[in-house]
Amino acid sequence: MEQEIKQRISSLRTFMRELGISAFISPSTDPHASEYTPEHWESRKWISGFTGSAGTAVITLREGGVWTDSRYFLQAEQQLNDTGLSLFKDCLPDTPSIAEWLGSVLSPGDSVGIDGWVNSVSEVEQLAHELSEYGLVLKVVKDPYDSLWVDRPTLPSNALLIMPEQLTGAVVIDKLTNIREALTQKRADGILISALDEIAWTLNLRGSDVHCNPVFVSYLVVMQDAATLYINSNKTTERIQMYLEINGIETKPYEDIVSDLQHYSGQSILLPENTNFTLYNSIPSAVEIIRAASPISLLKAVKNDTEIAGFHAAMHRDGIAMVRFIIWLKKVVKSGTETEVSINQKLYDFRAAHPYFKGISFDTIAGYQQHGAIVHYEATAETASTLKPEGLLLLDSGAQYLDGTTDITRTLVLGPITEAQKKDYTLVLKGFINLSLAVFPHGTCGTQLDILARQAMWKEGINYGHGTGHGVGHFLNVHEGPHQIRMNNVPVPLLPGMTITNEPGIYKAGEYGIRIENTMIVKKAMTTDFGMFYKLEPLTLCPIDKEAIIVEMLTQEEKDWFNSYHKRVYDELAVDLTPEEQVWLKGATAPI
Amino acid sequence: MEQEIKQRISSLRTFMRELGISAFISPSTDPHASEYTPEHWESRKWISGFTGSAGTAVITLREGGVWTDSRYFLQAEQQLNDTGLSLFKDCLPDTPSIAEWLGSVLSPGDSVGIDGWVNSVSEVEQLAHELSEYGLVLKVVKDPYDSLWVDRPTLPSNALLIMPEQLTGAVVIDKLTNIREALTQKRADGILISALDEIAWTLNLRGSDVHCNPVFVSYLVVMQDAATLYINSNKTTERIQMYLEINGIETKPYEDIVSDLQHYSGQSILLPENTNFTLYNSIPSAVEIIRAASPISLLKAVKNDTEIAGFHAAMHRDGIAMVRFIIWLKKVVKSGTETEVSINQKLYDFRAAHPYFKGISFDTIAGYQQHGAIVHYEATAETASTLKPEGLLLLDSGAQYLDGTTDITRTLVLGPITEAQKKDYTLVLKGFINLSLAVFPHGTCGTQLDILARQAMWKEGINYGHGTGHGVGHFLNVHEGPHQIRMNNVPVPLLPGMTITNEPGIYKAGEYGIRIENTMIVKKAMTTDFGMFYKLEPLTLCPIDKEAIIVEMLTQEEKDWFNSYHKRVYDELAVDLTPEEQVWLKGATAPI
Repeated sequence: MEQEIKQRISSLRTFMRELGISAFISPSTDPHASEYTPEHWESRKWISGFTGSAGTAVITLREGGVWTDSRYFLQAEQQLNDTGLSLFKDCLPDTPSIAEWLGSVLSPGDSVGIDGWVNSVSEVEQLAHELSEYGLVLKVVKDPYDSLWVDRPTLPSNALLIMPEQLTGAVVIDKLTNIREALTQKRADGILISALDEIAWTLNLRGSDVHCNPVFVSYLVVMQDAATLYINSNKTTERIQMYLEINGIETKPYEDIVSDLQHYSGQSILLPENTNFTLYNSIPSAVEIIRAASPISLLKAVKNDTEIAGFHAAMHRDGIAMVRFIIWLKKVVKSGTETEVSINQKLYDFRAAHPYFKGISFDTIAGYQQHGAIVHYEATAETASTLKPEGLLLLDSGAQYLDGTTDITRTLVLGPITEAQKKDYTLVLKGFINLSLAVFPHGTCGTQLDILARQAMWKEGINYGHGTGHGVGHFLNVHEGPHQIRMNNVPVPLLPGMTITNEPGIYKAGEYGIRIENTMIVKKAMTTDFGMFYKLEPLTLCPIDKEAIIVEMLTQEEKDWFNSYHKRVYDELAVDLTPEEQVWLKGATAPI
Repeated sequence: MEQEIKQRISSLRTFMRELGISAFISPSTDPHASEYTPEHWESRKWISGFTGSAGTAVITLREGGVWTDSRYFLQAEQQLNDTGLSLFKDCLPDTPSIAEWLGSVLSPGDSVGIDGWVNSVSEVEQLAHELSEYGLVLKVVKDPYDSLWVDRPTLPSNALLIMPEQLTGAVVIDKLTNIREALTQKRADGILISALDEIAWTLNLRGSDVHCNPVFVSYLVVMQDAATLYINSNKTTERIQMYLEINGIETKPYEDIVSDLQHYSGQSILLPENTNFTLYNSIPSAVEIIRAASPISLLKAVKNDTEIAGFHAAMHRDGIAMVRFIIWLKKVVKSGTETEVSINQKLYDFRAAHPYFKGISFDTIAGYQQHGAIVHYEATAETASTLKPEGLLLLDSGAQYLDGTTDITRTLVLGPITEAQKKDYTLVLKGFINLSLAVFPHGTCGTQLDILARQAMWKEGINYGHGTGHGVGHFLNVHEGPHQIRMNNVPVPLLPGMTITNEPGIYKAGEYGIRIENTMIVKKAMTTDFGMFYKLEPLTLCPIDKEAIIVEMLTQEEKDWFNSYHKRVYDELAVDLTPEEQVWLKGATAPI
């Protein structure tokens, strides 16, 4: 593999020389600014061999490197070994930015190439500015992988699924009306929607073009009096065509987006910040471009009552599957025959038992002991550890159901564990509970809440390098915005109806990883003289392993929350469990 | 007074008609973007009668209003009564912005006037953009108050004070070197420093031009090889002249700043964001303007060891004065003769006993019972309540000492109080303690910590409308940045050596106000595998009234912090107290 990677890099360098560029930057995204993309656009994986979901490869004529975040440090180190590419660890104080590094290895006047399709206009502007500080010139060039990547996968032609109103709670016409109102407010005649989950949500359609994300490759242009879906015709059956027509959506070939934008008929267009550079530049200069956050992102994030009811149903059956899986696991682990991979299949089977199951919502992270410290670890047949009746298993998984998406992490005690593991587990639990207990006024952003999940471990000099919470789509992407809970400022207030995860963790490299995660929903708590206050209510229903808790480290308030959450888990799940399973759950949720 | 205000507004309207503008905006600041200004620039107070430190008056030909924040809602309501001006409460959901309001009362094409001297360039740009949404045109006009305000105070001509190295810990040459290094990093040939506290800090000089702020009116231009102080010659004695000369500082008349900027000799200049619009526009177009945060602000905020030692000494003697005052007050309150004003004089006397005392650092807020709910209440002979042996007294005060500035709030129990007062007091205390207990990694901003001070009260649906913490100058302004702890995002990490206050509060209008405030300093806590962690250490030394605490509402961790802080207060202060005072302090700091 390393040899193959070297050959690919060598072919890219030939391409670079031909175009007179001294470096080429390959990000991990696609023309739709997707976090996960169809294989066709996984060129950063192809060129570097690094398979993590986030990372940027930068190749110069002599050197090269991959920038990725702490979730992938260990994985990237292994995968980049012997490829000639260096690992640059994002967000560490000594790591140069891509521009700083290029400034240090190139000479003033050199050109740096990018593909305008897979870089947003704001990224391009930012990068051009940073490179200019070193006298470097940013050059937008054609996609090198079209010619270099011989067996490049084609764009997917998977079928679409129509979501009925009973599941979505809102028909397309109403969604378009809301979008058009938002456009009027922004004084925009139209909007180009590139984000695939926004298109799927708007049209109440789902696809299967991206692993784990039920989206389909397309663009959608919404004007005040028309809407056009740009999609490959092999994806739209007659039924879909008719459905779109009834909803006032015209369809055109996917490739037509560029020429249509070049002949855009409105006077102004809203281009969300994630619009790719090439499409941005297709807009005629006479058209006023309004750059702003996509209004669909916020509309989609606030779930309606039908979606919320769907989430509750999905979480209920996901909790049943998780309980059955944990009962099975805790028994079978003594056999010493199960691995990180085999248990994953078992969990899949428990979930797949329900007819609404449409697949997993992301690749399961089943990390036993030291593998738990690799934040986005994915076990393979070669790397999989065999589970023993000792230590901790970090299990982060989720499912796509027709009525909701789930995302849950539990760290399970498989047998005797160390005092250090117990202490760290309890610190994570304290953070998890304190965020669960949050009450906050209207206008509060996730960044303001983030410390609730971290303060207990910060007092011990421990931290985690990932965000604390993200939105979860309704039978859509398991990661969605625009709101988040994280250390960096994300200036989007949390609003009632938004889903948000709560997932603090502690990772001790080479030893173990601990994470506890519920998906929650923002709800109204109260209105007082001081305004409206919101709270967070867990959607996820699954016991949290008590065996690793040092109870004395918890305050009474923390214990009370824990016991009342466990009571709710029992009360809601027991009815659908066998008597034997009920007994187990009764014990697993007994008060501490 | 109301009649006089009406006449002034009428004269402003005549001025507006002459210039063809339909509205004029008077902010509360001055050409130096000061929070508190010499009387000469208190034109917003003059035109509106509203005397709060923050607020903007907007006068149209027919109407007018004052925008101010929640600290001043009650005060502004009283002072604007019968002036014809309306109160607009900043940050409330239904309050229009100034541009929105002007858009609703003016017609497209109308002009809105401002004085370019007292508005920063970013404010002007922002306002012009907002007004343009309503078809309104922003017009920069001459200062109307030069002609209208007949007895307008002249600029102050107070003398300057040289701060020796024993107090500042850094000589001017070294400070200039640091500033010049920062300029090199920003690729700026020079910088215009308008902020008066930044000039005072840089030059190790103090003045008395602004009430409570030991600054002096001037501009400072620092180039790589020269530095020029623009200051009225009646302020610089021969000794000061010599001192400046030795430090390589040229002096020129204050008024020369405009023409000198018009002939600026460098190729680039750093203009901090608070630079006023008129000076910004004096820079020749050939000069590259670099707009960025002032590097002096951050250099000044991180205190050196000498400054920190000075703070400790200042806080020690301030604590002694506070303890003596509280002992006196708790005795004398039974007499029923003391008022909010008389006790303020007594507190002043206790502080003034020390030769380093240079005045108060802000107007004392002594708010008894319902007056405590007026966040920036200042008692006057007419309004002052007489204290009775019951209820709560909110006392927020501070001093300027040669070696440090203090800022402390205690809410004192004068006799029997209600259960509601005790509960709110304990909620404030919980927030205060949880922020005191904060530990956080390098890079953390105040916004991330803010919730620690609010979470306990948020759970009860209570909030306060002011920030939680601000920097405190070293014998300089009691409010300084660039860091803060507040709900709004302030993207400045807290660094070791920064001072920061901790001042949560609860205000029940018409009933009582509670605030507890320490000034703290950021210190290194530990370095672990996860990086460097910081903590907050109280500088303030003064007991916190135990009589209002509902002890059962505190966690063990909170009680432990409280008792250990009180032990430190006793251990550090007792040595300088009389035996009788020691007995009182022993009781006041006995463990709960």
